[in-house]
Amino acid sequence: MEKLHFASDYMEGAHPDVLKALCDTNPLSTPGYGGDAFCVEAADLIRDACRCQGAAVYFLTGGTQTNETVISALLKPWEGVIAADSGHISVHEAGAIEHGGHKVLTIPQADGKLSADAVKRYVERFSSDDNHEHMVFPGAVYISQPTEFGTLYSLSELEELSRVCRRSGIRLYCDGARLAFALGCPGCDVSLADMARLCDVFYIGGTKCGALLGEAVVIPDPSVLPHFFTLIKQHGALLAKGRILGVQFRALFENGLYEKIGRNAVLCADRLRNAFEHAGYKLMYSSPTNQLFVSLTDKEYEFLSERIEMSFWDREDGHVIVRLAAGWATDDRAVDAAADIILSSGNGDTP
Amino acid sequence: MEKLHFASDYMEGAHPDVLKALCDTNPLSTPGYGGDAFCVEAADLIRDACRCQGAAVYFLTGGTQTNETVISALLKPWEGVIAADSGHISVHEAGAIEHGGHKVLTIPQADGKLSADAVKRYVERFSSDDNHEHMVFPGAVYISQPTEFGTLYSLSELEELSRVCRRSGIRLYCDGARLAFALGCPGCDVSLADMARLCDVFYIGGTKCGALLGEAVVIPDPSVLPHFFTLIKQHGALLAKGRILGVQFRALFENGLYEKIGRNAVLCADRLRNAFEHAGYKLMYSSPTNQLFVSLTDKEYEFLSERIEMSFWDREDGHVIVRLAAGWATDDRAVDAAADIILSSGNGDTP
Amino acid sequence: MEKLHFASDYMEGAHPDVLKALCDTNPLSTPGYGGDAFCVEAADLIRDACRCQGAAVYFLTGGTQTNETVISALLKPWEGVIAADSGHISVHEAGAIEHGGHKVLTIPQADGKLSADAVKRYVERFSSDDNHEHMVFPGAVYISQPTEFGTLYSLSELEELSRVCRRSGIRLYCDGARLAFALGCPGCDVSLADMARLCDVFYIGGTKCGALLGEAVVIPDPSVLPHFFTLIKQHGALLAKGRILGVQFRALFENGLYEKIGRNAVLCADRLRNAFEHAGYKLMYSSPTNQLFVSLTDKEYEFLSERIEMSFWDREDGHVIVRLAAGWATDDRAVDAAADIILSSGNGDTP
Amino acid sequence: MEKLHFASDYMEGAHPDVLKALCDTNPLSTPGYGGDAFCVEAADLIRDACRCQGAAVYFLTGGTQTNETVISALLKPWEGVIAADSGHISVHEAGAIEHGGHKVLTIPQADGKLSADAVKRYVERFSSDDNHEHMVFPGAVYISQPTEFGTLYSLSELEELSRVCRRSGIRLYCDGARLAFALGCPGCDVSLADMARLCDVFYIGGTKCGALLGEAVVIPDPSVLPHFFTLIKQHGALLAKGRILGVQFRALFENGLYEKIGRNAVLCADRLRNAFEHAGYKLMYSSPTNQLFVSLTDKEYEFLSERIEMSFWDREDGHVIVRLAAGWATDDRAVDAAADIILSSGNGDTP
Repeated sequence: MEKLHFASDYMEGAHPDVLKALCDTNPLSTPGYGGDAFCVEAADLIRDACRCQGAAVYFLTGGTQTNETVISALLKPWEGVIAADSGHISVHEAGAIEHGGHKVLTIPQADGKLSADAVKRYVERFSSDDNHEHMVFPGAVYISQPTEFGTLYSLSELEELSRVCRRSGIRLYCDGARLAFALGCPGCDVSLADMARLCDVFYIGGTKCGALLGEAVVIPDPSVLPHFFTLIKQHGALLAKGRILGVQFRALFENGLYEKIGRNAVLCADRLRNAFEHAGYKLMYSSPTNQLFVSLTDKEYEFLSERIEMSFWDREDGHVIVRLAAGWATDDRAVDAAADIILSSGNGDTP
Repeated sequence: MEKLHFASDYMEGAHPDVLKALCDTNPLSTPGYGGDAFCVEAADLIRDACRCQGAAVYFLTGGTQTNETVISALLKPWEGVIAADSGHISVHEAGAIEHGGHKVLTIPQADGKLSADAVKRYVERFSSDDNHEHMVFPGAVYISQPTEFGTLYSLSELEELSRVCRRSGIRLYCDGARLAFALGCPGCDVSLADMARLCDVFYIGGTKCGALLGEAVVIPDPSVLPHFFTLIKQHGALLAKGRILGVQFRALFENGLYEKIGRNAVLCADRLRNAFEHAGYKLMYSSPTNQLFVSLTDKEYEFLSERIEMSFWDREDGHVIVRLAAGWATDDRAVDAAADIILSSGNGDTP
Repeated sequence: MEKLHFASDYMEGAHPDVLKALCDTNPLSTPGYGGDAFCVEAADLIRDACRCQGAAVYFLTGGTQTNETVISALLKPWEGVIAADSGHISVHEAGAIEHGGHKVLTIPQADGKLSADAVKRYVERFSSDDNHEHMVFPGAVYISQPTEFGTLYSLSELEELSRVCRRSGIRLYCDGARLAFALGCPGCDVSLADMARLCDVFYIGGTKCGALLGEAVVIPDPSVLPHFFTLIKQHGALLAKGRILGVQFRALFENGLYEKIGRNAVLCADRLRNAFEHAGYKLMYSSPTNQLFVSLTDKEYEFLSERIEMSFWDREDGHVIVRLAAGWATDDRAVDAAADIILSSGNGDTP
Repeated sequence: MEKLHFASDYMEGAHPDVLKALCDTNPLSTPGYGGDAFCVEAADLIRDACRCQGAAVYFLTGGTQTNETVISALLKPWEGVIAADSGHISVHEAGAIEHGGHKVLTIPQADGKLSADAVKRYVERFSSDDNHEHMVFPGAVYISQPTEFGTLYSLSELEELSRVCRRSGIRLYCDGARLAFALGCPGCDVSLADMARLCDVFYIGGTKCGALLGEAVVIPDPSVLPHFFTLIKQHGALLAKGRILGVQFRALFENGLYEKIGRNAVLCADRLRNAFEHAGYKLMYSSPTNQLFVSLTDKEYEFLSERIEMSFWDREDGHVIVRLAAGWATDDRAVDAAADIILSSGNGDTP
């Protein structure tokens, strides 16, 4: 029996519509470096979706690259970026932000999120410190929507965070590697237009959301990132054939595909969550999106991971925490099969 | 009339065989970050082509990214990289090498190349300088094959350069963004196996040579770049769906496609070179590959560039130097049409 | 009444013997950049004091500079440095380590110290993480002796830490900005020879211990920091008149002055500690060296800080924590006067 | 016979007045990090001398440190600094500027200087390049007064350079490591007030001009370098006992000492220049300041360098170029003795 693939949401190629667009446009000759009509049209569609006609839109190839290029462009030399201690830039980017010369200023997460209050306290404490001129200034806040734990900022949480940042003169940047899975989640009340209204920069993830690769950086007020094109080049993030990103994002935004593409994954994840709950397992974090996190005993882990591909996430209190992820390509039969296995392993007790 | 496209060699998508491979493999589920079977097979095929079974092979997405990631990994903190003053890293990468903390130590080019002698003199002068401990140590040499001027290192030139570098304990790194156009050039006597034998690191360009994007870094002795995977991540150069690079390079190397793909472009460029020569124009540099450089008066430039898409390259002695490039996708009829226009503009004198 | 100066241990110029040495040698002509006889002699004296004839010794000008120059020289590009979250490099160096491209990997402190166990757990957890190749590798451990809280590593603690580091292939670096106050403390069982035996690099602080400025970096096995001279230059840390550091360290080590110079400060601090305890105040941390930390109510803080210069350190549970420091120059009468004020403010209750 | 010391201008300690000030102030207790009265007074005196009451003044410890701290603070991430190819930052600072992430954009020197015209041409060529967004933007110009060759910018040259820079939105930064030797040179028509009027930042060298160490950075419009204090800290350039720089600069500027201190050195150098010319040697460059450069045959070099300490500077056309430097401490008898030796070696022909 082939394994059931729930290890991550980047296991397949591109959504068929996206692949078709790449094939259809393949023979055309276009100028390089994003100066082609596809990139222009994709940017227009994104501006429309974000209801932000003044935004600048750039296409990069991956999440870490986008994070380090944007953050180093946002920060002044004396500044660092505030992030949850579980933030992707804090842990899993091999020190890319620090390689660019900036400190990641971590605050303990709560359900994978940074609260406006925690940021406010951090900034106030910093400002009132007699020695703050010997310290790294908080210049930006990094969040992700959904977070690394699959959780979501509500609109009111995001509004509050944005308010705190603006009052303090701090930039708010949102990593949207899996943004489609927020937009496709019934419980999510934050739209793309809200993101554009509340963030100084954010990116719309393509790699995990239907594209072969690619992330679209949206800068509602372009003056926030002057000469960003040159910085993209300097960070090795500029594709000669920029059009392959434009073509893909045009396909993702042409008929509202991006805002729908996450729906299936969230529904599949819901079904897996239900199966785990029915079988008596403990779900970790309150993730309503395409990722779910389960606490397993070693024996349960052995049994389940032999049958269902999942990722080891952490070890806590003698249990293994695993992550399962559904994607736009996840198929119903795989979910059925996985649910059966989970339920059969019953009561948190392997047969 | 549509313009004839000779502005660059990265104007179209992927070679049909490469695109087909992407489509065929699209629905498959694979692990991320290059840990998939396609990347493994592509690396094997490249090791075979390079006759270097011990080599490490990594796939990155673009030239500037590859240059800055490799060079910063090769150099110690007190070292810089020697390059021709016309080298891509010296001029057109927005300071990516310096952003990584290292100086580019330039030597005047001759026909776009660095001679072994010039490198030897540089190193000797450096070593004998009383103050050399206050200076940047030469730690690596950067060359490109073909060069930015379309010219080629001969095997004996490359051997001599390699010898000088090894005697001095300096790494030799070759940028092969357009390597297929060297391999496809009848006058080129340097094989992939020679590259692997003579360079410490080199990359096999995909973006300009049949892929949508992608460059394959070859490290004949992997101990030269320890922990390179983590550095790729740190430099934002690691794709979650690494397999899209593996799939493409597998297609490029499966039936020797890569070593043939440049042939057409070189033949097309030869025909354009002939046309320019017959028409009495002056060709610049001694490029035998897919790029050609022509010196034009302003009037000639105006006439020709209205009809044939070309790139402005430089301005010298009151003339415009333009670059034309043919690619794997260039079609015979476009070359015929361009040759007619060139010949009709005759005698270096526009009609 | 003039205030009593206990705000820090760097308020006066140089120890009279050091100043005399600067005056005596002032007219002599010497070569630059540390190539003078004074630097050579000072290094010899330090090697003797450390019982480590093979050590390399370099003189830099300040603590942050020394930390960032040494740490960036110790680390490979994929590595970061482990430090207590209270470590000077973690908090009060304006991001100097990150500016050099490296992450500070923080571990919660206990009494200002890193335990061998905590380091071991960190390294084990890192090594066993499936994703550790996406993370910053721990390449060095940073400690300070005495710590930022005035506390001391015992010999057995340091030995254990050194053992853990060596087993893991991690460098151990010790910041000795106030090392004289450890050496001058009756309860300290770690000698300079122990430091040289157990650390890969450490520095002997001059600025706070009798010099106008200057820190002596000791590298027991010089191969640990190749081309360190050039890196000193690159980090802007090389003095043209390097001899002014050599002259001062020669004076500090000529007659064992350095190992005695901290004694007075520790005795003065002991007397202040006694006064605070008698008066019913709460001392924070278990510092036996020249710094003491006291928890005060706002009212107590106002009363005392009007009469005695002290530093605001932190605010915790509604109390102010202040730091007082004695130095080699602190005079008995000032201690008497301060003790009287403290005692008179009695019972933790201002009059 | 002891050798005559003309190898450099940083061979002795501090000017007696400066040393006396250090001794007199040594026992006083002052706050750290430059917050003391001496630094405040020194800054005021410097503002007066520069006739620029709005200037910010900071004290750092050495030339390379000052250059890299100021330049990295002046530049935006996409910018580099233009310098003569003979500029100190281009050659002899071990890549400090590049370590900070920025490219040094070199222009061929003429007599050690950058002409306004050459800068203008560079900027125009850059701006008109179709690909300039792929290149490093010129963000600042680095010059030195006197230059590395001892030559001087005239007031009109400096005004022209300043004009070109301001028109192009480029900052002008002047390295004044040896500024006293310009001010002390009869032929110099550029005053401190002119520097403050024409440069965006410059530094007044102390190390080579009477201090033990120290350079005073003058920023006529402080908004040019925001948060510079924190950047000084981050670059490891902040002294805990900042007052030792303030004390020295106060002494140097109290009675106009700085503007007189270079006079003697220039007169001594003049006498050596005369001796060389009378003896038939060829002087290189048109240096009127405290440094002189002479072209010698190997035999002449052997003869003279055995008797007079000088520095090897370069090798050109089979000749050795040597540098001799006089300082504020150079004594007449040493000049007499050196002149005798030079004259006796007569006619460019050693006896």
